[in-house]
Amino acid sequence: MNLKYAVIGYGFIGRRHVKTLKSFAESDCVAVCDINPLRLKEVKELYPEIAVYDNADQLFDKTDVDGVIIAANNNQHKDLVIKAARAGKHIICEKPVAMSVRDLDEMVAEVEKAGVTFTVHQQRRFDKDFRSVKECYDQKMVGDIYIIKSSLYGFNGNMHDWHVFKEEGGGMLYDWGVHLIDQILYMVNSRLISVYADIRNVINKEVDDYFKIILRFENRVTAEIELGTYILSDRPNWFERHWYVGGNKGSMYADKFDPSGKIVRTTRLLENVPGDQEKSTASYGPTRSFGIPEPGLLIVEDIPQVDCEQMDYFTNYFKAIKGEEEFLVKIPEVRRVLSVMEACWKSARTMKSVDFE
Amino acid sequence: MNLKYAVIGYGFIGRRHVKTLKSFAESDCVAVCDINPLRLKEVKELYPEIAVYDNADQLFDKTDVDGVIIAANNNQHKDLVIKAARAGKHIICEKPVAMSVRDLDEMVAEVEKAGVTFTVHQQRRFDKDFRSVKECYDQKMVGDIYIIKSSLYGFNGNMHDWHVFKEEGGGMLYDWGVHLIDQILYMVNSRLISVYADIRNVINKEVDDYFKIILRFENRVTAEIELGTYILSDRPNWFERHWYVGGNKGSMYADKFDPSGKIVRTTRLLENVPGDQEKSTASYGPTRSFGIPEPGLLIVEDIPQVDCEQMDYFTNYFKAIKGEEEFLVKIPEVRRVLSVMEACWKSARTMKSVDFE
Repeated sequence: MNLKYAVIGYGFIGRRHVKTLKSFAESDCVAVCDINPLRLKEVKELYPEIAVYDNADQLFDKTDVDGVIIAANNNQHKDLVIKAARAGKHIICEKPVAMSVRDLDEMVAEVEKAGVTFTVHQQRRFDKDFRSVKECYDQKMVGDIYIIKSSLYGFNGNMHDWHVFKEEGGGMLYDWGVHLIDQILYMVNSRLISVYADIRNVINKEVDDYFKIILRFENRVTAEIELGTYILSDRPNWFERHWYVGGNKGSMYADKFDPSGKIVRTTRLLENVPGDQEKSTASYGPTRSFGIPEPGLLIVEDIPQVDCEQMDYFTNYFKAIKGEEEFLVKIPEVRRVLSVMEACWKSARTMKSVDFE
Repeated sequence: MNLKYAVIGYGFIGRRHVKTLKSFAESDCVAVCDINPLRLKEVKELYPEIAVYDNADQLFDKTDVDGVIIAANNNQHKDLVIKAARAGKHIICEKPVAMSVRDLDEMVAEVEKAGVTFTVHQQRRFDKDFRSVKECYDQKMVGDIYIIKSSLYGFNGNMHDWHVFKEEGGGMLYDWGVHLIDQILYMVNSRLISVYADIRNVINKEVDDYFKIILRFENRVTAEIELGTYILSDRPNWFERHWYVGGNKGSMYADKFDPSGKIVRTTRLLENVPGDQEKSTASYGPTRSFGIPEPGLLIVEDIPQVDCEQMDYFTNYFKAIKGEEEFLVKIPEVRRVLSVMEACWKSARTMKSVDFE
């Protein structure tokens, strides 16, 4: 099987998709579409065999492709998915799949009418940091989990090209929030009861560059997602991915995309102690409930090692195309993520939590 | 002026109050009341001059005191404050002043009828860590603040003596939450629009030992309070007080009760960059918005140094008693804190935010 694909949108991620399609035995990239002539010139120089178009209709008219990867600006996903569906192509769309649940529903109606395959590039389900935490979660390595924190901090304050424009689908909730929420929903298999969010434009004029999201699930897990592009510290590895998982049998932390961290436990729990003691002394005034643990009380273990990479997304994809597996990223899942994002905006605007499911 | 005080409740904090009252020129401790005979024995050995009682009525009948410090279990504050008011004494009550707003209102009615002074020992308004952050806040050292995080982590999982019993007023929200909320409300002088909280019994059977509280203020500050007695890590200074303040001109962090930390800024903000670049590379896959800052981009400054100690609470107190100052801790303020705590419980139970003011 050698499926011919076009990549629509030759920006940051479109470039990677061309390489990916050329690297898999199952696929080739035979066409690229972009409105920017400089980018098309770059394609011709790098890949003389690839046809280039500045217009998706022409692409579908003139080059016979089996599928497309849509990697244009977020606000173009809807029209391009519908065009590709009507042209009868397999569709991979970049995240966020759409600007709203309503748009997605229109897209899905066209996809179903056309009978084409449709999935979304939520490749961060294969990020090593996430998979390590997911393993801890799935194996109950820290007992019953009450809190999961997923965060990512930056120093720029500002964003790249069209991501600074609201009408193009810019902002960090669309760009990264969609991944961070998707990871949590993919991991925590439970009814999501409520959504609470604070979303800010700290430095950017038009678009959000900070968000804190709290998701409360029926299984008593609370997930906290925080991302900021202007959250500073001089600590080592600060501008990186961070996870913290708290359970009743220990805690896990992990830092970096290629994660390092620990599972931490105590050898015992402090029992109720008589009131007539002043045993523990913190650095500022005595406090009994907090202070320095005695040597040997904490024990640490390595975090789970996982063997995966983002490219596994395409391994699954081609197996699914061949009917050997299901698509890992299913449309009802990305629809649920979009619904959470809409609840986040509503919560941020009203300063109230939003009942979800 | 030498005012005679009684201390009611000779536990962890009652012991300190006896010493404090003896250390100030304005006061002496002339009586102690506790239901535990071993504790009264200890008082007699340490302070033969102090009268001891196992009953507050007898204390007020037999020893002529000007004021009391009430440091009994939380569920006894109400009765003891009312008794002391009816006996015409100056009253300092330990935190939390009452188990509910309704109880406090009954107490205040009696205090007003009696015309006595009444304040609450919220001495952590003078904690150095808090005052350093408050200085940053007041002086707008990091510009417009969008987020303040106040947290404290422990390893025990369990609590001391009566704090493990719900009906005695146990649990960490009553014990520490009252301080952490008070600090935020004292610092952020703005209408509190909504309260959101997650409160857990992670290890303890009856009482809460973890809480996360989010307070959203009209001035666009969001304050996040997190405390857990079973939140583990092997990082240095983990089991300590932590603050993080994010503003649009920098960030501040501070760790420990005697705080160390930094104010961190960037020399420039990244402007909108052309899309045809792949400049920044994080450790796992290229990402443009996140990654390692170039050398020299971050600049750090020391956090504000403050000169204060918890004992300043009593310095203010005696000045206020003499009419030279107002009481720092006012009853409407502690009532507001209690209202927030009630909103927290409601939010935790319903998994919804609670509209506040």
